[in-house]
Amino acid sequence: MTCDINDLADFASLLADESRKVINKYFRKNITISIKNDNTQATNVDIEVEELLRQIIKNRYEGHQIVGEEIINEKKIDNSGIKWVLDPIDGTRAFIHGKPTFGTLIAVIKNDLPIVGLIDQPIQKERWISFNNKTNYNGNLVKSSNNTDINKARLEATSPLMFSEDSYKKFLKIVSSVSSVSWGADCYAYGMLANGYVDIVCEQGMKFWDYAALIPIIEGSGGKISDWTGKRLDETSDGAVLASANEKIHEKALKILNN
Amino acid sequence: MTCDINDLADFASLLADESRKVINKYFRKNITISIKNDNTQATNVDIEVEELLRQIIKNRYEGHQIVGEEIINEKKIDNSGIKWVLDPIDGTRAFIHGKPTFGTLIAVIKNDLPIVGLIDQPIQKERWISFNNKTNYNGNLVKSSNNTDINKARLEATSPLMFSEDSYKKFLKIVSSVSSVSWGADCYAYGMLANGYVDIVCEQGMKFWDYAALIPIIEGSGGKISDWTGKRLDETSDGAVLASANEKIHEKALKILNN
Repeated sequence: MTCDINDLADFASLLADESRKVINKYFRKNITISIKNDNTQATNVDIEVEELLRQIIKNRYEGHQIVGEEIINEKKIDNSGIKWVLDPIDGTRAFIHGKPTFGTLIAVIKNDLPIVGLIDQPIQKERWISFNNKTNYNGNLVKSSNNTDINKARLEATSPLMFSEDSYKKFLKIVSSVSSVSWGADCYAYGMLANGYVDIVCEQGMKFWDYAALIPIIEGSGGKISDWTGKRLDETSDGAVLASANEKIHEKALKILNN
Repeated sequence: MTCDINDLADFASLLADESRKVINKYFRKNITISIKNDNTQATNVDIEVEELLRQIIKNRYEGHQIVGEEIINEKKIDNSGIKWVLDPIDGTRAFIHGKPTFGTLIAVIKNDLPIVGLIDQPIQKERWISFNNKTNYNGNLVKSSNNTDINKARLEATSPLMFSEDSYKKFLKIVSSVSSVSWGADCYAYGMLANGYVDIVCEQGMKFWDYAALIPIIEGSGGKISDWTGKRLDETSDGAVLASANEKIHEKALKILNN
């Protein structure tokens, strides 16, 4: 089985077409909510989407490893070095509350490097896909903002409850430096950053499936993404994520976080 | 000039049709941001929409008073006792950040009582309108949730930064009692409550134009809205707002806030 990057990206899009159908069937209808071991919520939709995507991947690429948020992960991997990372609904709370700002996240990792990233917002039919260091939004290349002035920056975070007490204090130093702060957008915030409407996203407590797909999306639009010390994100990162519209504003945000 | 409530509601809808056109022209395009005296942001779009709506109201109902967020208010009022309350873009930060969860708010107040309330989300083409104690969403009557179990409640607030230190502590008591908390939705959270997807919205620092339209919307769907002491909201309220899907869960939330 060849693993051409264009084929993998096309296949990721096909997966998102399928997840979109399932999610649209359930959005704002009767959904079943369960509480997971880590005390977070999942719905029947999260699980149905992940099962479906896993099955489609297995049918096409039998030996690829699959890592997902909802289902126990299999260790099996063939010599392609390819791993699919799935978050069927990033922003389950927004989904439960009827807000169309959640998304399906799909990443393709080759030998620990994310080579394809995809965010799909199924209700608004918005899709970001990134590979070969280019990020595409609904068919058009996008470019993050070139604003390097932190005082004019637009900041996003999903929830104040995601931070530890100490890290919330650090986060508030960025809050007091920027011009506007808005909340609750999950992966959608990173999409808005890629499109140039947001300058900084600063979060904590993220899992690998929450940020794997975002790495190519942010980098392909001209932005920068790392942990809070500036280190490149990978499967072993501590879950603190800083994404910025460009390298200069990223450096400024890192300095505020660490001073 | 007659002031039939059905005519007023139809006219409110016509105003929202016009605001929708202007906002769609600017969303995710070049917008100009200015900082107001109270240190909050406004855009050229907030101002253009409010000027337009004021002009249309004046042409139709010359003597009605108009109160809006962006423009100095005129005291003039005729013997109809009617006041229009306008917030051209509730959720300016979301609008600036490219997120389609802001809304245009229009209320009609007669002798200090809100008799028509309207929320319009122009990008997603979602509209709530309430009068005669019924709330309509895109042409269908809606009903808030009948969940009375606070442990299963879905809670919304726009931003942790809207609370004073003391009130944030009170708010966190509700947070620790509910099943899910989601942020950043501005007026859209109240629309989701009317439609049955959210049980409680708890906020502070709200102005009259932020909540006037929400009173009929929440009440017309079967919900309850008050300040944090349980007192009915009016122009003199202190800006603390509690909206709930039904009376029972409202009482429980009030008890948590005040104990």
